[in-house]
Amino acid sequence: MRTITIKPAAIIHNLNQVKKLAPQARVLAMVKANAYGHGVAAVLPALQQADGVGVATLIEALEARQLGWDKTIGLIEGAFTSDEWRQAIEYDISCVIHHAPQLAWALEHTPPANSATQVVWLKYNTGMNRLGFNDQTIIPAAKLLHEAGYQLILTTHFANADDHNHPLNAIQIQRFNDMLSTLRETISADTKGSLCNSAGIVNFSEHHHDWVRPGIMLYGSAPVIDQSARELGLQPAMDFSAQIIALQTINAGDAIGYGSRWLAQQDTKTALVSVGYGDGYPRVIGDDAYVSVIDAINHQRYPCTVIGRVAMDMIVIDVSNVPESIALNSKVILWGDAPHVDEVAKHAGTISYELLCRLSARPNRI
Amino acid sequence: MRTITIKPAAIIHNLNQVKKLAPQARVLAMVKANAYGHGVAAVLPALQQADGVGVATLIEALEARQLGWDKTIGLIEGAFTSDEWRQAIEYDISCVIHHAPQLAWALEHTPPANSATQVVWLKYNTGMNRLGFNDQTIIPAAKLLHEAGYQLILTTHFANADDHNHPLNAIQIQRFNDMLSTLRETISADTKGSLCNSAGIVNFSEHHHDWVRPGIMLYGSAPVIDQSARELGLQPAMDFSAQIIALQTINAGDAIGYGSRWLAQQDTKTALVSVGYGDGYPRVIGDDAYVSVIDAINHQRYPCTVIGRVAMDMIVIDVSNVPESIALNSKVILWGDAPHVDEVAKHAGTISYELLCRLSARPNRI
Repeated sequence: MRTITIKPAAIIHNLNQVKKLAPQARVLAMVKANAYGHGVAAVLPALQQADGVGVATLIEALEARQLGWDKTIGLIEGAFTSDEWRQAIEYDISCVIHHAPQLAWALEHTPPANSATQVVWLKYNTGMNRLGFNDQTIIPAAKLLHEAGYQLILTTHFANADDHNHPLNAIQIQRFNDMLSTLRETISADTKGSLCNSAGIVNFSEHHHDWVRPGIMLYGSAPVIDQSARELGLQPAMDFSAQIIALQTINAGDAIGYGSRWLAQQDTKTALVSVGYGDGYPRVIGDDAYVSVIDAINHQRYPCTVIGRVAMDMIVIDVSNVPESIALNSKVILWGDAPHVDEVAKHAGTISYELLCRLSARPNRI
Repeated sequence: MRTITIKPAAIIHNLNQVKKLAPQARVLAMVKANAYGHGVAAVLPALQQADGVGVATLIEALEARQLGWDKTIGLIEGAFTSDEWRQAIEYDISCVIHHAPQLAWALEHTPPANSATQVVWLKYNTGMNRLGFNDQTIIPAAKLLHEAGYQLILTTHFANADDHNHPLNAIQIQRFNDMLSTLRETISADTKGSLCNSAGIVNFSEHHHDWVRPGIMLYGSAPVIDQSARELGLQPAMDFSAQIIALQTINAGDAIGYGSRWLAQQDTKTALVSVGYGDGYPRVIGDDAYVSVIDAINHQRYPCTVIGRVAMDMIVIDVSNVPESIALNSKVILWGDAPHVDEVAKHAGTISYELLCRLSARPNRI
């Protein structure tokens, strides 16, 4: 059976790694997109030591509240409508404010004293150019919000924090730090700052400010291009597995699967595995993509290459290197300890984030 | 709000197209992988004129039964265990039998008379080389099943039916037709045949036999490489949409999004759209990928290029060509009538099947 197993102990461990890297900062743990595909209900209990969670939509925010999360919930794109803003007040959600309409809603409908919605994450565009106020508009926005009783967290988002040497990083950091100083001097000395996502936590330890916002590293993937998850002491929080449902030997010269794109150079022992892109395994992968077959008897792992086109419901793997004893229904690891999801992502020409988020509802979840 | 809208009328229309192309055959409508991501509960009511539905796992089969589907359910990889075989009998599921262990389970536990499980889809490997009995093993298997009281449907699967001219097609057809004749002569004259998936239905009308097995064409995508969905008279069954949550003008020289991979050549009006790979929109797309913005006032559609890296929760689009009146919360079509999901798939270097299957649970479904 296709199975996704979530390991809360790994998430707890990874959160501790964040806290070691950013001991002074509060932690807004990202659980948007169903906790990067891990399932928010499965993940929240492992995040009890976080100071808050971050979500992308009001529906996600309400889900976290319904699941009993009673600390900070940060809505990272803010309310999409005036009505959503009022719901955010009702459920004590802290919102990003990144453009003028959101500012207008916040000034029109102010939350009661001590509401978590009194804390706003004021978004400053330092170079990502997706959302945020610019140099001209952010100071007046901050002033209006402060005067209306809001507590401000200045926030921005890195475009290239995964690459320590990218020239835009220094520019974004400088802009952010300068603006934070300005707001503290001219608006409120109590203005907080939040700059770093996972990559920033790893790469820019001098700039953690008041809140860090780890996402992918909580789930055990590497957020930077020059260090692996293992090197960063991160543990993968998900095992994605399936099983062997048939074994056969194909003859030299036989092609396998759609497009007949894989041609056997010699007689080859193959296994059919009950998983495909209909479950979320990527359809387009390189020739070096592999899975691990677990021998049910000695529990040894055997790396096996995926051969032929990934189909909706099945893949074929080369089990030539696996002992004869390999049995029907043997477990096959698509990603987990090995291969790590970061490796699979590389084979698929993307990043682990996408593989995790684009899992379908079909796999059984544990 | 990210929204997936399913159009039952399109599915009914597409099923009628199948019936026009294959008027003599019975139709096993593929609803595996949650009806190619459309949602099996949403799709079954539109398939009342089909003779059966096809699924990939026992769980999917039981779901279809629970939803009230009382006609044929074909389990296209068959039972994975002896226990699953017995459950198939219990719920009247017709199974593929593609290898020796399944044959053994079927001979050990025979279904009662008039059970749908008495109909078995005996899989013959004609060149796909994923699953199925070979030339040597299929005749003895057929004989044993026939003697145990089973009614046989010989079945196989094309590897390259999307490409009419691929040389393997003629070989697979010849092998299949020869074996069907042999079984009819030597085992049972009542042996049925099922050869064609969507692509086979379109490309090989002389070989439809007793059952056709349409999948992707029911959902309105083209199953062949040389004709579009429109040319085949197919209607897309899904609209995937989101909304504009912010508008801004960026300056010439500004980069957008992760990796700063898109650089504005001139001052550019952009819109932020609340959708990303966390919803199932593909992360890696070509520069020609576009969406359609719907003007709320005159309902006109404006094609807008996706610029910068697709992120988990948002994309940026170029709205330079959209009138000034374009409003916050305007609807944005990711795929539907235009762009067709087949176009988006091309921009993403894959096929529509994958995009549809790998939608996440986050979008609201109508």
